Parts: sequence; structure tokens; C-alpha cells
Amino acid sequence: MAGNSFGTLFNLTTFGESHGPAVGGVIDGCPSGLEVNFNAIQHELNRRRPGQSAIVTQRKEPDEVQFLSGIFEGKTTGAPIGFMVQNTNQKSGDYDHIKDAYRPSHADYTYDKKYGFRDYRGGGRSSARETISRVVAGAIAKQILPGITINAFVSSVGDIFIDKPYQALDFSLIESNDVRCPDSTTAEKMEAYIKEIRKQGDTVGGTVTCVIKGVPVGLGEPAFDKLHAELGKAMLSINAVKGFEYGSGFCGAKMKGSEHNDLFNTDGTTKSNLSGGIQGGISNGMDIYFRVAFKPVATIMQEQETIDKQGNIVKMQGRGRHDPCVVPRAVPIVEAMAAIVLADFYLINKSYTK
Amino acid sequence: MAGNSFGTLFNLTTFGESHGPAVGGVIDGCPSGLEVNFNAIQHELNRRRPGQSAIVTQRKEPDEVQFLSGIFEGKTTGAPIGFMVQNTNQKSGDYDHIKDAYRPSHADYTYDKKYGFRDYRGGGRSSARETISRVVAGAIAKQILPGITINAFVSSVGDIFIDKPYQALDFSLIESNDVRCPDSTTAEKMEAYIKEIRKQGDTVGGTVTCVIKGVPVGLGEPAFDKLHAELGKAMLSINAVKGFEYGSGFCGAKMKGSEHNDLFNTDGTTKSNLSGGIQGGISNGMDIYFRVAFKPVATIMQEQETIDKQGNIVKMQGRGRHDPCVVPRAVPIVEAMAAIVLADFYLINKSYTK
Amino acid sequence: MAGNSFGTLFNLTTFGESHGPAVGGVIDGCPSGLEVNFNAIQHELNRRRPGQSAIVTQRKEPDEVQFLSGIFEGKTTGAPIGFMVQNTNQKSGDYDHIKDAYRPSHADYTYDKKYGFRDYRGGGRSSARETISRVVAGAIAKQILPGITINAFVSSVGDIFIDKPYQALDFSLIESNDVRCPDSTTAEKMEAYIKEIRKQGDTVGGTVTCVIKGVPVGLGEPAFDKLHAELGKAMLSINAVKGFEYGSGFCGAKMKGSEHNDLFNTDGTTKSNLSGGIQGGISNGMDIYFRVAFKPVATIMQEQETIDKQGNIVKMQGRGRHDPCVVPRAVPIVEAMAAIVLADFYLINKSYTK
Amino acid sequence: MAGNSFGTLFNLTTFGESHGPAVGGVIDGCPSGLEVNFNAIQHELNRRRPGQSAIVTQRKEPDEVQFLSGIFEGKTTGAPIGFMVQNTNQKSGDYDHIKDAYRPSHADYTYDKKYGFRDYRGGGRSSARETISRVVAGAIAKQILPGITINAFVSSVGDIFIDKPYQALDFSLIESNDVRCPDSTTAEKMEAYIKEIRKQGDTVGGTVTCVIKGVPVGLGEPAFDKLHAELGKAMLSINAVKGFEYGSGFCGAKMKGSEHNDLFNTDGTTKSNLSGGIQGGISNGMDIYFRVAFKPVATIMQEQETIDKQGNIVKMQGRGRHDPCVVPRAVPIVEAMAAIVLADFYLINKSYTK
Repeated sequence: MAGNSFGTLFNLTTFGESHGPAVGGVIDGCPSGLEVNFNAIQHELNRRRPGQSAIVTQRKEPDEVQFLSGIFEGKTTGAPIGFMVQNTNQKSGDYDHIKDAYRPSHADYTYDKKYGFRDYRGGGRSSARETISRVVAGAIAKQILPGITINAFVSSVGDIFIDKPYQALDFSLIESNDVRCPDSTTAEKMEAYIKEIRKQGDTVGGTVTCVIKGVPVGLGEPAFDKLHAELGKAMLSINAVKGFEYGSGFCGAKMKGSEHNDLFNTDGTTKSNLSGGIQGGISNGMDIYFRVAFKPVATIMQEQETIDKQGNIVKMQGRGRHDPCVVPRAVPIVEAMAAIVLADFYLINKSYTK
Repeated sequence: MAGNSFGTLFNLTTFGESHGPAVGGVIDGCPSGLEVNFNAIQHELNRRRPGQSAIVTQRKEPDEVQFLSGIFEGKTTGAPIGFMVQNTNQKSGDYDHIKDAYRPSHADYTYDKKYGFRDYRGGGRSSARETISRVVAGAIAKQILPGITINAFVSSVGDIFIDKPYQALDFSLIESNDVRCPDSTTAEKMEAYIKEIRKQGDTVGGTVTCVIKGVPVGLGEPAFDKLHAELGKAMLSINAVKGFEYGSGFCGAKMKGSEHNDLFNTDGTTKSNLSGGIQGGISNGMDIYFRVAFKPVATIMQEQETIDKQGNIVKMQGRGRHDPCVVPRAVPIVEAMAAIVLADFYLINKSYTK
Repeated sequence: MAGNSFGTLFNLTTFGESHGPAVGGVIDGCPSGLEVNFNAIQHELNRRRPGQSAIVTQRKEPDEVQFLSGIFEGKTTGAPIGFMVQNTNQKSGDYDHIKDAYRPSHADYTYDKKYGFRDYRGGGRSSARETISRVVAGAIAKQILPGITINAFVSSVGDIFIDKPYQALDFSLIESNDVRCPDSTTAEKMEAYIKEIRKQGDTVGGTVTCVIKGVPVGLGEPAFDKLHAELGKAMLSINAVKGFEYGSGFCGAKMKGSEHNDLFNTDGTTKSNLSGGIQGGISNGMDIYFRVAFKPVATIMQEQETIDKQGNIVKMQGRGRHDPCVVPRAVPIVEAMAAIVLADFYLINKSYTK
Repeated sequence: MAGNSFGTLFNLTTFGESHGPAVGGVIDGCPSGLEVNFNAIQHELNRRRPGQSAIVTQRKEPDEVQFLSGIFEGKTTGAPIGFMVQNTNQKSGDYDHIKDAYRPSHADYTYDKKYGFRDYRGGGRSSARETISRVVAGAIAKQILPGITINAFVSSVGDIFIDKPYQALDFSLIESNDVRCPDSTTAEKMEAYIKEIRKQGDTVGGTVTCVIKGVPVGLGEPAFDKLHAELGKAMLSINAVKGFEYGSGFCGAKMKGSEHNDLFNTDGTTKSNLSGGIQGGISNGMDIYFRVAFKPVATIMQEQETIDKQGNIVKMQGRGRHDPCVVPRAVPIVEAMAAIVLADFYLINKSYTK
């Protein structure tokens, strides 16, 4: 395996390049008998889809998923679920300028060196279109997690951030604006900033925060496969991610034990939750929350100098359709990966308990 | 598997509890013919060992590793390397007070709920003694990585941090002070602060930065098993870790693309390195660097209220031997896990190339 | 994972049901830069395809493979190779009679009990159409194995068997008759027998022998993943297989050590080869050969009594298109699985050697 | 990983060489709360141990297992179970004659070629002492399988075989004779034959049959990880095994469908059981039975010609302590591997069901 599979019992394998015939995947290990909510799956794909608003890329594709196996009369059969989304709106001509040149801070150079050559059209395998398959699998994973809700939202764009704890936010507002920020004042600022950045032909980074409620006590394995370690790997495997922290995160590293410890209530819940819902790698029943850092999109509409395969300096300017800020569209991807991780641990945990 | 194994081709399985007969592990997949440098392994164990200085726990154990297999006449044979370190200095009586009570922000509660009961002595499996096995495997992994150097150091303790880029530091000074900080002025402040914290019966968090030089282009797999995703998982699997960032990390999320992009030199190296040596999940030959956040040790020498199994409120105060600040001893563990990740990708990469 | 993946480095995941939209798979870990011989792949699919001769099922489907990813300008890119073959000639109506009834010696009963219900059309996931994906992957695996030739053939049908050692056979004759038996006299007898069996509305079992030449010394891992153990698992995972033996096999169990030992020539080859080319789980450079037993197809055109879901006795007679003898079509599947196993060990072995 | 691990959820990793300090392993994934029956474990080790009777090797070692982790106050904790058995009775001097020479039909040559050198003492990693770890894990696996009984026995030695179906045998007699054959008349013949073979300085092969009762419907995964495919791999991974068949096996390949089909009773059981308790890779609730072929031990006490590392012809005669026939001691190993396979599928199956 070359790293295109994720999960032990609930396992996703993805395939597909940006400008090939299709992207897709296989979900192996989905329990049988689940009445599949297809609308919910398409809803998640629509959230991820480009071209939805003025602040994201204008590549418009329907991104309709086609299931090839594993579902019969609307229910999962226990067989592997093969699926694909056809690539219909490729403008490969947009990419001729990078056929021989390496875009700065893209995977062009490393792919060429690792594999000897690359499918350069639209980034090929390194394109964020690969995340379509994650969103499909995540939408199914959500459906097997009883009573668990997963909400991600944009918590910062550039220097603009939500200045409130997540408990003060109304998650029903996440989808009320293009930037997917549940705090409307902050959302407006973010949106204005992204538009300005776009005008400059530039891009900007941001963070996504994710809050998971209703996780039963006991998910996660204590040594290498700690719940937060798998969540971290899952998030870091999303394109453009530079960091992951959960609970108190990097702030926790500045604190004292006497401040940081979460004292117990008599029912086993805790008075505070700097732990982020996980102790020793195992969920403790409190909210799980974490934050993911995304770098600015590397493709900018400004001229940059770079090199070609022969090491010659060439000038390059972004073409094609690109997001000025990736975080709004990253929200459903973060949720999807979280759902996949939880579904996997949920199944593993069932196997060990009576 | 319940998460006690790590790695695809260079694979470590660990076992052992703090107060059981031994901790140890099995390394499967170490190439044959390696002349094992046993001193280097013991040296790493000594760095991790408690009782080395005034600022760490005083539990003194020789932590001598005993190899049980896989090495013949000083060389690896290609067979699995079984090893163990006996637990010789347990004071299990120190832990009677937690037999029925749950220490705040420890794994006591989650283990009890997940497994039905727990080996409470010294934290059992959740003890940081488990990391001994990682240090052994990491020390061997280092020996199969040609021309790669891995240096971790303490970059912050509480609010005190090194105010310089890593390029300005002299890594040969890391071991020159108890806190493992290569900037001696900062190290002194850290040390003073830790001693003060200890006097208060309190603990404090910190961060470890790791810099890896000499990594060839091409390590890492592009989708789920991105090089930084595996590094992130590896770090997050270390006890007490709350966050991981590489390259520009969380700061990168505030930047613009025009600032963040690493422009190429004609030889394929880059002028800046905000990418942290990884593009699209694959090493690009530049320095890899990342930062790991550790929370303050949960066991404090102050009285805290907590609950017992029956949900009764009980008072508790830390006993036994505990670190006021875990980061100095975490340094060799961070290096070990980085070495294991790199060794694994190094072997995987060999299999695909001509 | 629920067992739909095979292989460590060269990994195949399959999906698809007999009467769903498509069968297909994902190959993860195929090295980059391979010029894909598409004709060779289609050739193998044609060998497996039904409707080729008077002695196999008359279901006629073109079985054309469509590649969805991982290949660019005719060469593998190192990205996962997604592929599918559409199901075009389903006659699902043929299967209404088994919707509620369990065919004897089929998987109907066990699927229903394990999963709660099943896709009954054409056997659903348990159909031999699943092997299409194996044949595609095997045809690619063959292309990455330098200098290795894999030849399988029908060595027995019912009581009729080839009465010669494989060394006396001309493998170029395998495809010269419908039964895929390289000994023409025996082939004629087999063919006549299969036609007779078909007239009776009955079916018959048989064996396939496989000979692999040119395997370098060193493939296979010595403990659980012995080369012959993986070959055995691969063969036993093919529908209808009841047994596997390699080298001297079950006959070897009757022999004395003084008869069975393969004495060395001075160049490391052996004078005899009762070992079947494998010592201690590792290839020794001699021919690898093994034999696979297939039971008679369970669907017969005679009336049988069976039960329905409620436990009522019902009468049933095979309908649809079925093989009177499965072994001729099993030949390319056996070769495919052998190629996948060898490709995997070939890549693993590369990772450990200098 | 280099093939020293087995199992997905109930996972065993083994280590150790014949003449190193110890053999042992790690069981990862054993459910918590199991009251470990230590006597039952030692009992299985004693059955495997050499030196028990006149017909097996006289190497006498206590083979006492020492548990290093994962068990607390007599119960499994859910943590990995590390264990070892010290090697106490090595006579390494016995092996000086093979330091540079390759024993025919042993792994000496393939190890040397694969790894560059080898631990030649007692066969090193290729020694059957590795199976000690399997027996320990199998004895624990048996304890988590409710209501399942596993009985293996010697069904043939050379040309002497039990001429009865297993249903006619009394398994309580298996341990009543040294050869572990439940049919006493046949057992006597086998024993006499083995003694005669030993006098000749020769060895002989045989078969072990295994019968598993009480398996619930539903264990096994339908595509690659069929229940019988994993059982087959498990058996073929035991030293000296040349073949595996289950249910009708190789005989089934001679039969017609009308003879071979197992017709149902109204309760879902079947009138016959040529299927061997497995349909479509999934247990159907009937007895599972299979047969394993073992070649004659390669080390004989007669002079043989062989070659040394330099390709020179040398004469060699077996020294040390060796079994004239391996099958009696293989009986507990076959049972152990069967138990490990079943425990793994039992846990996997739990994860998918409600």
C-alpha cells in the first residue's frame, strides 16, 4: 500500500486525479443493514463543491456520486461500497504552463522526483479533488455513529478570528454565510478580507475548529492509536494543513498543572475540559474539540519566478480556477475525516466489549 | 490489534506496564546486516531515564535494555528484534491511594470505563515508561538512516521560549544543560522556573522542537500517509502531547500566499522553507522541522478534590516520583518517534524505486 | 476492513456484485513508470470471460476494463489505479427463485445469517464475477515481475488427470483446447467428460496446477508470511477452492526424509525439487509449483430440495448460465493471484536489500 | 513488517531464535477481563515440548512461559500481553558443522541468500521453537472462544492412516498414546513404524486432522479473508507443512455437484458436510474440519552430500536432537493456530453486528 487507505475496520481507499475520468473510492467494513441517506451524502458533497459562492473557485461540477456496489435496495449489504464521481469540467489546457515547470509550494517538484514524472493536469493526484472521496465516506460514517454530532466551522482567516469559546456559538449559523463562520460579525469581516485578498490576486490561510458531541466513553486505543493521534493524522492528511491541536493545544503548553487539570463531577463528567474530551488517548464522554491550521493556497494570481525541470528560471502566474481561501470548503472535509476516525474506533471498540 | 504497533515496514510493537515485570517490544522489519551500536541505544535510554537531574523525577532505574532476538554476532539478522527493560525500582505502595480513585486529567477514569478495571500501579499501561520501547526502536531506526540527523530540543517552558529561529542555534549545546535547551540564557530561565514550579508542588507544560537534516527527496506517501501526517500521529501518540505543527504551522494560517510560498533556487532547493521540508506529503530535501506541545504533568503535589469509582468525592495529593516538567525527558522520545517514521518511509520508498 | 483487500505493498481492494452496476478495484502500490500493456490485461480478462466455448457458461459480456486513475500517457504514475468493468448482461430475473430460498452449498445461507439480508441476484458479492478484479490486478502484477513466468493449467477433471510430471508438458499448448490442459490426449477426455456431465445437468470438480519459473532467491518472509502460506491463502480465497498443496504436497507426507530431501548442486540449485522452490518460506530459485483443488459447481440443472428463509422445504433447479466445470476458467485467476503474491513479495524484498 | 505478525484484531507478533536468550511474543487485542487459565497455557506448552516420549526429540526444556505484561491480578487488562520462554538447554556446539554448510531441504541456503548471513545455531529463527509463541497465544485464544472446541490429531504417518471418518473417533483418546492418534490400533502401527524409521536414522512425514465444533454461523470475511483461506495460511505458516485441504478437499475435486452438495435440514443445518462447515468463506455452524500435510523432517541421521557457502561438496550427518516424525508434536500447534484464526474472526464479527 502506498498510503491511499485509511482506517482499520471502517476503511476507505481512494483513487483518482483531478483531470482523469473520475475520482472515487472503496469503503470496506461498513456494517450491513444501514439505510443509506443518499441526500445527506450529496448534501456534504455540495458543501465541498467549488463554485458555490463568490469567495471560492468557480470550477463548477455537479459532483454527483455514483455507487457501484455494496448497497442493495437502499441498504448497505456488508460488501465493499465502491463509488465514483466523474470529472466533467476539466480545463486541462489551463495547466499546460506547468507541464514542465514547478509551481512554488506545490507538490509538482516532489512528485516528479519521487515518481520520475507526473500527471500535471490540475495537480493530478495532489489535487484537492481527492477529498471528494473522503466526503462521501465521511457522510456514510456519520450515519453509523449513533447520537454523535460533528460540527466544524471556520474559526480564523488571516488575523481575523472568533473571539469566543465554542460554547458561546450557535452552530446552526455555520451555513448561514459563505465563509462558514457561526459568528456573523466575524464572518462579515472574514468575507470582506477574502474578497480583498482575491482582488490582490493573493490567497490567505485560516483555521477550522471542529466540535464533536455525544461521543461515548471508551473510543480510542491507548498507545500509538490514541483517539487524538488518529484525528491528528486524519487532519494532517488533508491538503494544505500545517498544524493540529486538541483541547488546550499549544496554549496548554504554557499552563500549570494546577490550572490545567480537569476536576471531576461526581457523575464522571469534568468541571472544565482542557483535555478536549480525551484522556490517555481514550474518549471520556466530554466534548471533543480540535483546531486545524491551513496554509494559504499556493496558487496565486501574481507573477512568481520559479524553475522548470531543467533548472531554468521561468516566470509563472496562476491560471485556472482557484480558491483565494481554502478554509470554507475545508469545513465538510474536516467533518468527514473526523467521522471516519470515530466510525473506525466505534467498530473496534465494539469488538472488545461484551 | 489494539493500537500497540506502529509502522508498515519498520514496525514496532510495544508492551509493558510501569509496575509489571518489564517493558519492551518487538521491532519487525529491521533490515539485516546492520552492525548494532549498542552504546548509542543505551545512550538514548539514559537521556530518557528519570533521576538524571534536579528538575526531573527521582525514580532511579538503570533502564538497561536486554535484547532477546534478531541480533547475532553484533549484527541484525532480519529476524524480529525482541527486547525488554526490567522494572526494578517500583514503589507500588505509592499508588495505593489511587486504586479506587481517579486522578484528574489522567487515564484512570477512561481505562476503567473502557476495560472494566485497570492496573493502577504507576499508571499501568498509561505510564510514560511505555516510551522506553520507543526510545530503543528509535535508536535502532537512527542507525539505518544514512546521512540523516535528528535533533530535538526544548523550545519553550511555560511562557519562556527561545526567541530565535532554529538556524541560529547550536545543537551541540542541547545536552549542555538539564533542560535540553540549546540557548543557554533561555535554558537558565527555564531551569529556574521549573525549580520554582516544583517548590509550589505544581507542574508546567512546554514545547519541543525537532529539526531533521539530510532527508532525501521522496519520502512520504501522498494521500493519507503524508510524511507530516505520520510524524504528527507519532508525536500525538506520546503521552501528554496536545498539539503538532510543522513548517509555518499555526502561524502559516495567518499568512498570505505571496508571503508563504517557498521560491525555488535553480538546484531545486528553496529560498525560504515555510513548507518545513515537505510538499504534498513528500520530503523535498530541505530541513524538516516541527513543534510539539506538551501539557503540564497532571500529577501535582497539591491537594485536589476528585472522585472514586463509586462517585464519592475524595481528596488526593500526588505521591511517588514525578516530573515537574516533562519536556526535557521528552526530547529523546520525540527524536525516537521521528526516526521510526523516517525509517519506515525510507524502506517503503526503496521498494518502489529502481 | 472486511477482507476485501489483499497485499502489503502491492495491494488490491476489490468491490462489486454480479448484478450491480460494475465490478472493479483499486491497486495501491504499483510502482511508477511502468508502460502498461493494456492488450495483455484484456487478454487475461478474455481468458476468464464466460461464453468462450461449449464447455463454459454462456453469459456473454465483453468484460472491458476501464481505468479511472493512476495511469497517465500510458504509464503508471505511482498513484492508485482505480478500474472497473461494467456489468452489462445481467439477467436478474433468472434469480427470483432464490430470493427467499437458499441454494445448497452456496453462500446464500451464510450471507443471510451474517449480514441480515443479501443481494441475491446472481450470487451478489459471492459471485465469481468478483475475480474479474483479481485478473486485472494480476495482469498488471505480471508486468512488474522481471523474468518471471507463471503458467497454470487444468491438471485434472473428475477422475481424469494428466499422468506426467509438469516438466514433460508443453505449456504453449495450454490455450490450444477449451479445457486448458496442455496434454492433448487428456484434454480430449476431459472435454468429452465435461460435455457428458453437462448433458446430465450435473457439474464436476477438478484441479489446476501452476508452475512459476524465474523467481529470484529470497522472496517470502519466514514466519507467518511464508511465500507458500500467502500463495495458499491467495488460492483458497478463490471461489470453490477446497485445497492447496505445493511441491511434494500431500504425497510428501507419506515419504521418508532420505527420499524427500533435495540435494544441492554446487551452484546452489538442487538435484530434485520436492520442496517446490521454497525453503523456510523463502524462494530458493527453483521452479515453484502448486496444485489447487476446485469443488464441482454447486448450481446443477437437476431438481434439488432445499429450504427457504422460513425453514420451509422448497424444490429448486438451477437456472441462469452456469459452468458445468469451473477449472478451465479458473486458470487465469490462479495465475493472477500468484502474480499478485509475487509482486507483493518482490516489492517487500526490495525494501530490505541494499 | 516482515511477516512476524498474524491477525487483525487478535494479533500475535513473535520473536526469538532457537539458541538465543528466549523466544516469545506479544498478543495485541486480547479483550480485557478474561480470567487467564495459566495451567491450560502450560498444558499446551507441555504437549508441544520435546522430550516427552520415545518417539520425539530428547531436547528437554521446561518451556515455562513468563508473562511480562497485560495481565493484572489474574485477568487480562486489554493491554498487550508480552511473554517469553527462556532457552535453557541449548547445545550450540551441536551445530558447528552447519555453520558454513547448507543442510538439504532446510532454510540455511535461503536465509543466507536473503539476509547475507544467518544465526545458524539450531536453525535460528527457522527453528520450530518459534511455534512456542504460537502455542501460548493459541491457548489464550481458546479461552476467549465461548463454546468452541478444537481437536487436532495425527491422521496419518507415512502410509499408515486412520481408515474411519472423524465422527467415528473418540477425541478423548488423542492423548492416550505418544503419537496422538485417537484410533488405538492405528496408533500402535504408527508408533512401531516411527521407531523403525528412527532406527534407520531416517524420518517420515504425516498428516494432522483438525475438527472444530461449536463455531457460530457468520465467522469469516467473504473475499480474500475467507475463513478457510486464513486457516490455510495459518497452517501453511507452520514449519514443514506442504498442503492444506478442508471439507471434501482434494477428493471433492473428483466429485460431481449432485454428490457434493450439502442439502439443508429445515433448521439450517445440512444433511452432509462436504463443505467442511464453511460456505462462501463464512462458517455455517456445522463442524469445521481440515487436514494438514507435513513433510518428513529434513535432518536425518544418515550421511548426505551437500555444499558449503563456497559451493564445495561436503559430507554431513544430522547431529543434535531431532524428531523422527514431527506430527505428534504438531498437534497442539495446529490447534493453536486454528484458535488464533477463530478468535480474530470472532472479534471482527462482533464489530459489525448489533
